[in-house]
Amino acid sequence: MDTIQKIVIIGSGHVGTHMGLAFRLAGLDVVQVYSRTAAHAQALAGKLECGYTDRMDALNPDADMYLIALTDDAIEDMVALFPYKKKLLVHTSGTTPLDALSNGSSRYGVFYPLQTFSKDVSLDYQKVPFCLEVSRDDDRAALEHLARKLSNTVQWTNSAQRRMLHVAAVFACNFVNHMYAVAADILKKQELSFDLLRPLIEETARKALENTPEAIQTGPARRNNLKVTKKHLEMLKENPDYHKMYNFISESIRKKYGFIH
Amino acid sequence: MDTIQKIVIIGSGHVGTHMGLAFRLAGLDVVQVYSRTAAHAQALAGKLECGYTDRMDALNPDADMYLIALTDDAIEDMVALFPYKKKLLVHTSGTTPLDALSNGSSRYGVFYPLQTFSKDVSLDYQKVPFCLEVSRDDDRAALEHLARKLSNTVQWTNSAQRRMLHVAAVFACNFVNHMYAVAADILKKQELSFDLLRPLIEETARKALENTPEAIQTGPARRNNLKVTKKHLEMLKENPDYHKMYNFISESIRKKYGFIH
Repeated sequence: MDTIQKIVIIGSGHVGTHMGLAFRLAGLDVVQVYSRTAAHAQALAGKLECGYTDRMDALNPDADMYLIALTDDAIEDMVALFPYKKKLLVHTSGTTPLDALSNGSSRYGVFYPLQTFSKDVSLDYQKVPFCLEVSRDDDRAALEHLARKLSNTVQWTNSAQRRMLHVAAVFACNFVNHMYAVAADILKKQELSFDLLRPLIEETARKALENTPEAIQTGPARRNNLKVTKKHLEMLKENPDYHKMYNFISESIRKKYGFIH
Repeated sequence: MDTIQKIVIIGSGHVGTHMGLAFRLAGLDVVQVYSRTAAHAQALAGKLECGYTDRMDALNPDADMYLIALTDDAIEDMVALFPYKKKLLVHTSGTTPLDALSNGSSRYGVFYPLQTFSKDVSLDYQKVPFCLEVSRDDDRAALEHLARKLSNTVQWTNSAQRRMLHVAAVFACNFVNHMYAVAADILKKQELSFDLLRPLIEETARKALENTPEAIQTGPARRNNLKVTKKHLEMLKENPDYHKMYNFISESIRKKYGFIH
């Protein structure tokens, strides 16, 4: 296959929306959007100025690639309904293995954007790493070429790497955000603004990326300061959830730096 | 008291070093550095072009403020040795209460910089929030005036607020960094670069600060996607520590969003 120009997007959620916008910005043709719910398909098709359908058997047959941007659970059902057995079919999931697409077509792959997508937040797609995998060697060049039109960072990963990458992303994004949320909640109860933490949050991210997180760890657990750790645990005892997290994360830090085994 | 111009710094670690540099940048006079270890005092005094001592009874008697930048455990010992009972004595600790200084002087306060300090990382001090507390109302204006010379963000907090602020900072900085470290470790084992997570880490911090962390939470736990959560836990079972953290943080997220009670 030479190049991928015409694309059908299957799914109209956050990922489908962002991928559609990214493709258009890169000069590619999104020719159709599919959603089980016609109104959703229509809404996204309006944004992308393309056709839409709510029937898998009415998918545009002339596209170069069909991109499934659905939740992991929904992928399998859609794959079974995919009508074009010789068309390149890809999914965008961190967790679903490549082979989950093997029933859909003889040519299949993965196009996994490593980013957190919100529906109404615009993004610089050039900075989003795309993790690729493909079933047939002769689709490899075209898929990489496509990804490089969208982004400066393209990485080939196998399914085992990609699912671990997804776990790492859960820690570095979802869990990090939950730590922010706990902090915000604690401050709110003290009638203090979350904005007070802004420079600390920015500096922590900046330092970890400029050095390594391992090298720049600070705080009571890192110094094995049990007096402060104990005091903090006592202050958190009214919230068993926060107490538990404080305890386990502190223990994990103390283990990492050799204070407990 | 009118203004604070001459300052003695007690302690030569990360915080003492950064405070000394910040004072100098703001046009204040750091007149002396104390450290228990003469060589440490001398090294910092060299950077700040001021005097130094390793004896508390040789502290310069002419300063307007004496700033204790020591670990929480060391503060108490130093306070007992502080010789000038009518001089303004402040500490920089998030956790130590204001009253811990009452044996040192009749005028005391807190000058807590809410930031993570590394010895060789330069900082924009204007962005560091300073949390203030003071024992006597007539020192209030001078302390605030001093803080505003250093920073754009000055916040009066009582000891209860400040120690909760410190706990919040542990979550938003130390624990966040440990999440980064876990992610980096997972990627290293897959021979993938931590740099792949850079856009995700930056975007997560940016979004949380532009909105609220609560509003922008994403991920399998937020969606109550137990299939993925379970798969991830299985993938982490060789590392009991990571497994435990993944489990408890996911549970905490699911509780927060009403999926479990």
